[in-house]
Amino acid sequence: MSEDHEAPMINGVEHETGKEEEVLPFEEDDYGGVIVEMKTPMDPKCFIATLRYSFTQWRLQGKKGVWLNLPLTHVNLVEPAVKEGFRYHHAEPTYLMLVYWIPKADSTIPLNASHRVRVGAVVLNPNNEILVVQEKYGTLRGLDVWKIPTGVVDVGEEIFTAAIREVKEETGIDTEFLEILAFCQTHKSFFAKSDLFFICLLRPTSFDIQKQDSEIEAAQWMRFEDSASQPITHKNGLFKEIHRICSMKMEKSYTGFSTKSITTFFDDKLGHLYLNKQEMSNHIS
Amino acid sequence: MSEDHEAPMINGVEHETGKEEEVLPFEEDDYGGVIVEMKTPMDPKCFIATLRYSFTQWRLQGKKGVWLNLPLTHVNLVEPAVKEGFRYHHAEPTYLMLVYWIPKADSTIPLNASHRVRVGAVVLNPNNEILVVQEKYGTLRGLDVWKIPTGVVDVGEEIFTAAIREVKEETGIDTEFLEILAFCQTHKSFFAKSDLFFICLLRPTSFDIQKQDSEIEAAQWMRFEDSASQPITHKNGLFKEIHRICSMKMEKSYTGFSTKSITTFFDDKLGHLYLNKQEMSNHIS
Repeated sequence: MSEDHEAPMINGVEHETGKEEEVLPFEEDDYGGVIVEMKTPMDPKCFIATLRYSFTQWRLQGKKGVWLNLPLTHVNLVEPAVKEGFRYHHAEPTYLMLVYWIPKADSTIPLNASHRVRVGAVVLNPNNEILVVQEKYGTLRGLDVWKIPTGVVDVGEEIFTAAIREVKEETGIDTEFLEILAFCQTHKSFFAKSDLFFICLLRPTSFDIQKQDSEIEAAQWMRFEDSASQPITHKNGLFKEIHRICSMKMEKSYTGFSTKSITTFFDDKLGHLYLNKQEMSNHIS
Repeated sequence: MSEDHEAPMINGVEHETGKEEEVLPFEEDDYGGVIVEMKTPMDPKCFIATLRYSFTQWRLQGKKGVWLNLPLTHVNLVEPAVKEGFRYHHAEPTYLMLVYWIPKADSTIPLNASHRVRVGAVVLNPNNEILVVQEKYGTLRGLDVWKIPTGVVDVGEEIFTAAIREVKEETGIDTEFLEILAFCQTHKSFFAKSDLFFICLLRPTSFDIQKQDSEIEAAQWMRFEDSASQPITHKNGLFKEIHRICSMKMEKSYTGFSTKSITTFFDDKLGHLYLNKQEMSNHIS
């Protein structure tokens, strides 16, 4: 960046010179990079001077990636940061993360989140009825199509928890998670991002429907054969597969993935593994 | 914007008045929203005036969400947009997407992408050997741990394609995809985002290893039992499960999910469904 600083002589000289001797507060990451989170407001000029001085230090220390987290309240520093060579990495409603790669070698900055994750909930009751809804919005609105409850997995939420939550929200029905029957990946589903849709099998533990008014037009228990014989089930690949898998499941000739809590390899983080557990327990026993 | 406007008269007053009669160029989305992609440079003052006039029109038209796509080159408009009430939605290296919700009712703006998707590749050869690597970077570096090749799924890439690509890149081995054996979800794996890790079973079609120099320290075919008996395999939940599932697979007592191309329900988009296909074909035959 600039080792050749021409310090202003009058008007705040002392202040800026002072800042130039300070490095922005940062933390180190595990990959030779630094993370700067701007917590206190800063004047853009002062920010640039401090940033430039920080870069001279980080270069000397052989640092690689520089992450810069600018909260929404520090939006005045976005333009200066980009002009100093930062690029956007990702953003959430309250902050923008920028990044700068120092070495001449190719960047190993990890990619941004690439997928949205959704769930569809298959809830079958002991009378061979399936829980279905009609939505107020979306492409199937007004087409008299009955579909399984669906929704988006929240940040930090487990897939099976999301399925239970969506069913409760849309229909008032309580459920227990049994299996992931299948999942589907599509691309460019949401801006440039991809979509992973997990079809979850749930067992109902309550039966009285209380539908949500904001998003759901109607909800009911429907005879499974009636749901399977809707014209859309024959026309649409995913609808058809869901019903086909369900009928095999009802005949007990299909096994999906159920869950097991584990620790993962890299950092002993707790996670959930989804695997063919039924065969596994057969194997073990 | 305005080819038909004359230069400002005095102090730019006429210029700004002129701008106030124009709506920013926009496209409509399927949910009653508008999408503005700023393609030509604009002076921030002029941008604010045009934006305000646009909002009066959009409000009259009952529009809901306003999406504002600002390329990196238009970084000078980020601060004015935020001061007018926009919030960040997401960002990629070359652009920042902001959003504004007009109605008094709760926002139905969809969530940003929430997950990063990774693959791990189990490649077993006919001699009961597994393809393993040691990485140059990361938490396992220097620990003499042999692990399966892993990597991040690129934007728009199929999970099974990513597994084949990573094995080829890291070891030079050609493979065919067989099944997803299991998958694992963890949270806060990457900033606030979650991680989905798919364990793929691949069949090798070539056997001569040519390791990648940039990221891989060493690669080899290793006796499956030797891989399974590494101390880390016993210590770490995910390593242990991977080996356990593999040994069941080798005894043909485990079925994962394989793929089928389908069209999805909402928009006839082509996708890949991952499901227990072996049992399905048993069922059909």
